Amino acid sequence: MKTSIERGALLRAVARAQSVVERRNTIPILANVLIEAEGDTVTFRATDLDIEVVDHAPAKVERAGATTVNAVTFHDIVRKLPDGALVNLTDDGASGRLAVEAGRSNFALATLPRQDFPVMATAEYTANFTAPAPVLRRLFDKSKFAISTEETRYYLNGVYMHVADGEGGQVLRCVATDGHRLARVDAPLPEGAETMPGVIVPRKAVGELGKLLTDDDTEISVSVSETKVRFATPEITLTTKVIDGTFPDYTRVIPTQNARKLEVDASDFARAVDRVATVSSERSRAVKMQLEDDRLILSVNAPDAGNAEEELVVAYSDDRLEIGFNAKYLQEIANQVDRENAVFLFNSAGDPTLMREGDDTSAVYVVMPMRV
Amino acid sequence: MKTSIERGALLRAVARAQSVVERRNTIPILANVLIEAEGDTVTFRATDLDIEVVDHAPAKVERAGATTVNAVTFHDIVRKLPDGALVNLTDDGASGRLAVEAGRSNFALATLPRQDFPVMATAEYTANFTAPAPVLRRLFDKSKFAISTEETRYYLNGVYMHVADGEGGQVLRCVATDGHRLARVDAPLPEGAETMPGVIVPRKAVGELGKLLTDDDTEISVSVSETKVRFATPEITLTTKVIDGTFPDYTRVIPTQNARKLEVDASDFARAVDRVATVSSERSRAVKMQLEDDRLILSVNAPDAGNAEEELVVAYSDDRLEIGFNAKYLQEIANQVDRENAVFLFNSAGDPTLMREGDDTSAVYVVMPMRV
Repeated sequence: MKTSIERGALLRAVARAQSVVERRNTIPILANVLIEAEGDTVTFRATDLDIEVVDHAPAKVERAGATTVNAVTFHDIVRKLPDGALVNLTDDGASGRLAVEAGRSNFALATLPRQDFPVMATAEYTANFTAPAPVLRRLFDKSKFAISTEETRYYLNGVYMHVADGEGGQVLRCVATDGHRLARVDAPLPEGAETMPGVIVPRKAVGELGKLLTDDDTEISVSVSETKVRFATPEITLTTKVIDGTFPDYTRVIPTQNARKLEVDASDFARAVDRVATVSSERSRAVKMQLEDDRLILSVNAPDAGNAEEELVVAYSDDRLEIGFNAKYLQEIANQVDRENAVFLFNSAGDPTLMREGDDTSAVYVVMPMRV
Repeated sequence: MKTSIERGALLRAVARAQSVVERRNTIPILANVLIEAEGDTVTFRATDLDIEVVDHAPAKVERAGATTVNAVTFHDIVRKLPDGALVNLTDDGASGRLAVEAGRSNFALATLPRQDFPVMATAEYTANFTAPAPVLRRLFDKSKFAISTEETRYYLNGVYMHVADGEGGQVLRCVATDGHRLARVDAPLPEGAETMPGVIVPRKAVGELGKLLTDDDTEISVSVSETKVRFATPEITLTTKVIDGTFPDYTRVIPTQNARKLEVDASDFARAVDRVATVSSERSRAVKMQLEDDRLILSVNAPDAGNAEEELVVAYSDDRLEIGFNAKYLQEIANQVDRENAVFLFNSAGDPTLMREGDDTSAVYVVMPMRV
């Protein structure tokens, strides 16, 4: 292999690929990035055996070839090279070293053979569709906070992406829950997605996906099979195995009869919750909400440290209600609200509460109350 | 106590005072900040028994008094209150609670009696002088990186501030060393400092001091005794116990006969060292410097990971020299250079090396070589 790449393009490609590499590896080849030079492109491939990221950079390829080097070291070197430098990569195959040259900097990095690199098997995808990056970003960004971290409930350790019946017909839906709260986010069903099997996209893949889903209107190609999902832009492809489990029937958790309605400015609400929660150092801080006549009183009582109370002017005209929640959960769902007021729908102090943004039902959140 | 304070002034004062509080305390009162309202000022006092910070904020005091509350909680609350709010603090002495009110926020924080708060005994200071903040900042900022973290050599766990004989007469000098490298920084001797005993200012106090020494030309009042040092601005006073030990005679460590001179652009040098060190994952990465005919070759050889080499054009006209250093040490001393080129003075590959900025001897650094 002999190729030269502009440092900026190289850095972008390597940075995105290497982020999937686990920092602690017992299998040496998994710490490496596979570099393949051919035509006028260099391809960078990294994997943790569950997720594979393939990225490209335009390059001048004098001699095609492939090798693998430590992803973190290679990324560090490229990052530290001066902006605008031309980086030459040369691998003669015999020395077991990849030469990296830029200006007066010369590196010789230990390589492992390309044959040892585990390239993910291609799958038979049963559905292929495209969706704008911001649409996919919204689906995952607004649901991922509710992903469970309990390893024993592995089927909750991801976002369940599937086709569902929405109010106005079929939708592409992402759901995540940890048993205490749940997020359900819908988008219009893209053409070609109808036949897609429901898949649980693992937490780490959701995180990596965030880096790929930029805010511009790039169309993302999505391919789904029973075992794998692939997201691709013209430059970068992320393939992930999906969680081999059954996502629970979440629909029965979402209350439909909750009638007591509170409407509140979401950021005022989140800030007030944050303030009153300050007095408690417990991990599961309970915040009490008292509702009566367009008035919301938030309070926290921590016997050792003191107590806190905050009053908000809200829209609430139902019966007096006292209900408690985990402060962190309240803040997290309030933070999902972008444009309008947060609307809470309560039943009783013991029942799950529903939250949505204004009248928009394309993203709804459910949170279980706590006894206070 | 009953007082009201503008939130911005309150936050500034509390933030600076609480930073000295240790996050893990076995003695409950040490987690608290002492709040004293009197005249038209509220005073905040925090301590870890070694360092005491006293800060002030202008306030409207309706009823003088004092109490203590948890420093971190109080700071968090003030930080989260909206900017521009007027904060009322009320303590009736009987409830064991301090009421904190701002707008529609109400907090009642657990208090501990002011009598329990350990106020640092005042000392007999043997020297009092003033120095501009930037002068003191330079003395400590340029020396602190060399402070030892070895607890067994407790007398090296700080910056040794003392009066010394400089080239042009007496100077105020700060020295720090960990046995591998040493920093010696001088400033003109302020009037009144002549009688000052040499003191070792502990690492944590040096860190806290950094927050007090702003870049503007505030005159800092410094008072020194055998056991304590005090730094004060009109608003804030930091008093610290000094390390009870004898700082070693550092003068014999500083080479005076080193004749082989290298002059190099400090930031080019630091970046090159950073790049070549990338290939080694060891904690004490050795960088080899090869010097010959205005050429410096920096190299690192890590058998497992590969090797790196970088060439720099420098000013060097002495005999060929090969010498190795810890990469981190080299970078840290190169980072001290602000204005001119870094000048290295070598003797042999086994002898301590001296570094200074151009011809400026008011800050010199010594670093021990490593075998490579």
